[in-house]
Amino acid sequence: MNKIPFVTKKQVEEITKTYPTPFHIYDEKGIRENVAALQEAFSWNPGYREFFAVKATPNPFLIDILREYGCGCDCSSLTELMLSDAIGIKGPDIMFSSNDTPAEEFVLADRLGATINLDDISHIPFLEETLGHLPKTLSCRYNPGGKFALGTDIMDNPGDAKYGFTTQQMFEGFRIMRQKGVEHFGIHAFLASNTVTNAYYPTLARQLFELAVKLQQETGAHIAFINLSGGIGIPYRPDQEPNDIRVIGDNVRKVYEEVLQPAGMGDVAIYTELGRFMMGPYGHLVTKVIHEKHTHKEYVGVDACAVNLMRPAMYGAYHHITVLGKEEQPCDHLYDVTGSLCENNDKFAIDRMLPKVETGDYLVIHDTGAHGFSMGYNYNGKLKSAELLLREDGSVKLIRRAERPQDYFATLDGFDIYHKMFPQEGE
Amino acid sequence: MNKIPFVTKKQVEEITKTYPTPFHIYDEKGIRENVAALQEAFSWNPGYREFFAVKATPNPFLIDILREYGCGCDCSSLTELMLSDAIGIKGPDIMFSSNDTPAEEFVLADRLGATINLDDISHIPFLEETLGHLPKTLSCRYNPGGKFALGTDIMDNPGDAKYGFTTQQMFEGFRIMRQKGVEHFGIHAFLASNTVTNAYYPTLARQLFELAVKLQQETGAHIAFINLSGGIGIPYRPDQEPNDIRVIGDNVRKVYEEVLQPAGMGDVAIYTELGRFMMGPYGHLVTKVIHEKHTHKEYVGVDACAVNLMRPAMYGAYHHITVLGKEEQPCDHLYDVTGSLCENNDKFAIDRMLPKVETGDYLVIHDTGAHGFSMGYNYNGKLKSAELLLREDGSVKLIRRAERPQDYFATLDGFDIYHKMFPQEGE
Repeated sequence: MNKIPFVTKKQVEEITKTYPTPFHIYDEKGIRENVAALQEAFSWNPGYREFFAVKATPNPFLIDILREYGCGCDCSSLTELMLSDAIGIKGPDIMFSSNDTPAEEFVLADRLGATINLDDISHIPFLEETLGHLPKTLSCRYNPGGKFALGTDIMDNPGDAKYGFTTQQMFEGFRIMRQKGVEHFGIHAFLASNTVTNAYYPTLARQLFELAVKLQQETGAHIAFINLSGGIGIPYRPDQEPNDIRVIGDNVRKVYEEVLQPAGMGDVAIYTELGRFMMGPYGHLVTKVIHEKHTHKEYVGVDACAVNLMRPAMYGAYHHITVLGKEEQPCDHLYDVTGSLCENNDKFAIDRMLPKVETGDYLVIHDTGAHGFSMGYNYNGKLKSAELLLREDGSVKLIRRAERPQDYFATLDGFDIYHKMFPQEGE
Repeated sequence: MNKIPFVTKKQVEEITKTYPTPFHIYDEKGIRENVAALQEAFSWNPGYREFFAVKATPNPFLIDILREYGCGCDCSSLTELMLSDAIGIKGPDIMFSSNDTPAEEFVLADRLGATINLDDISHIPFLEETLGHLPKTLSCRYNPGGKFALGTDIMDNPGDAKYGFTTQQMFEGFRIMRQKGVEHFGIHAFLASNTVTNAYYPTLARQLFELAVKLQQETGAHIAFINLSGGIGIPYRPDQEPNDIRVIGDNVRKVYEEVLQPAGMGDVAIYTELGRFMMGPYGHLVTKVIHEKHTHKEYVGVDACAVNLMRPAMYGAYHHITVLGKEEQPCDHLYDVTGSLCENNDKFAIDRMLPKVETGDYLVIHDTGAHGFSMGYNYNGKLKSAELLLREDGSVKLIRRAERPQDYFATLDGFDIYHKMFPQEGE
């Protein structure tokens, strides 16, 4: 698949008159089309809901677009709960999926009326002690252990993951919660990350649906929803085929009809907690080439760095790169594309074939819409960039300003040195 | 080597009455003894100076301790330059060592009178164009390529590193700069990271000293200093022997006397840019056990996460862990020690033998004094912790407050949603 940026060189030249590079820009049109397709794919299930994984892209303007389509929020921390609430996504429109959870996060989740998804059986007494009660609805995260495979293809190792209840703990946990007055139950599982196969959700669904039937039969618990969580990935590489969400939705429906309906569980709502799939492809990191370096290798130095996008540094992740204005030129030059951190893993690409790159060229780093800005750090004291929204009408809106030195030094604001640096700033 | 924390359980219980966990705490006594030993080890060189690598631990109170011993700052960005200047470390007490450098950083470095260390030959015209002149003193970072080996032991791969001039470019660069009126030159190299062998600096020194003699002979440039940069590591693991800085200093002296003095270059100043060595062992991340989880493995869940310390998640780095109050108990339980991020690499230790851990226990995660707090991100919307200084008199001083939600959302402060969340905050 040819990866084509959603902005042109001409657009970027216009945008940079107002907003200097580097910046993340998001494609409203793409986001809307994708969420509409998702909703359509699961429209066969009356209770269906997508809870957007806020951690992927915690920007209120982007989440507000998803809200228009009926999406809720999957929150994992205090600030994510605060953000969701401020956007107007409240109560059961929030799924609180966390692990190793601090007490104060459970308190806020409960106060907002969020549905709480417990990560561990020990969280049942912890939650009860923290809140003084248990909510009427609770969900449990399931981890069957072992390896998650599609055919002979091992996709991930749940047995090595810190998350979830074992099978035995699911039954035990449901019984305990029933005794303690919990009335409605959910089942949640995340068994493989960033899958690029239409088979993941249906395979997972069968496993969870069969578990749900047993849980209902053996514990008498009312299963209100099954949360397939995240894991639907995106094609970072041009040679990958994207998932077809219509096929995925339809195949989950088939499993639903095959397993849940015959068990009299045709009222179970299907939930998803997609993040990457919702936003990943609809974000670009736009950066400018500021240096060309010819030493033991050929280097292209850009004005973005791992502060803006950490996935290549942390995971060695591939992100496709387009040199704007050179889309039609042959990729006949071999480069490392580097940022400015004093950290040798600060490279957006290693040994990447690109057209001949020159200082002043704009690069689009693709698929930064999820786990891009949100994973940024401030190593080397570098500042995070702005976020922009490319609207459907072609206009551009600032949806988060770039960091300033004052932000970087904010946690020193109780000390003289801060006021020496920023004499104009109040307390 | 038995790794003994510099705080006891009793001290931590006292500290947490004022400052809740998690926090980073630094040991003033250890910092002072170590910097004094470093200065002593290189006292044979009248021009010797350590430029502390600010990126390792950008805390003004800690840097100010080093300043008392004559240390300068190694800065790599705009904010690090600002911080150094505000601490009172100015002019040639600042070494500006950067790569893929934006123009505005060169401008500030020059305005502060910092010594600029160029990463690439193309930065000579870039700097001249940016400043309108070249400074009288300039340094060049050297990268010989290939592999850096001690005997048959390959320590690092400079040939794969984005940094520095090639050998040929060093000669060409010095000639160009001489022609352009640069009068004093420095040579800088960083060829291996976190070495735990006394042989690294002397081996590097020989390579740089021999290069310096040739450069002076062939280009006529006056070599004012040779910057051995960082690379002196610390023993993260208990079975590692720490470097002996006196032996290192003495062996660099021998090479100096062997190579530089006979060439009439006995006035060359030796510089270092240590970060990890200066601070690493003198920082602890103190965290509390909030959950015990028994599933497919045994998990200890703590109130810190990769936001406080990213090295285990990013590099799989080992950090030693002590369970306070259980120092004498046998390490007969196998655990994964996890943080709360929805990110399976958020584990401070995997398969670690520890004494039996219980909820409420305080853990000391060792050697977090460098590249600990400074590498923290805000993934999952989690907030960074405070930094404390354990003074020589046993008292504790707050040297950076913990982040608040307002800090996390600061770059939304131009939008209504921020004021909805924080109605009491002004613009």
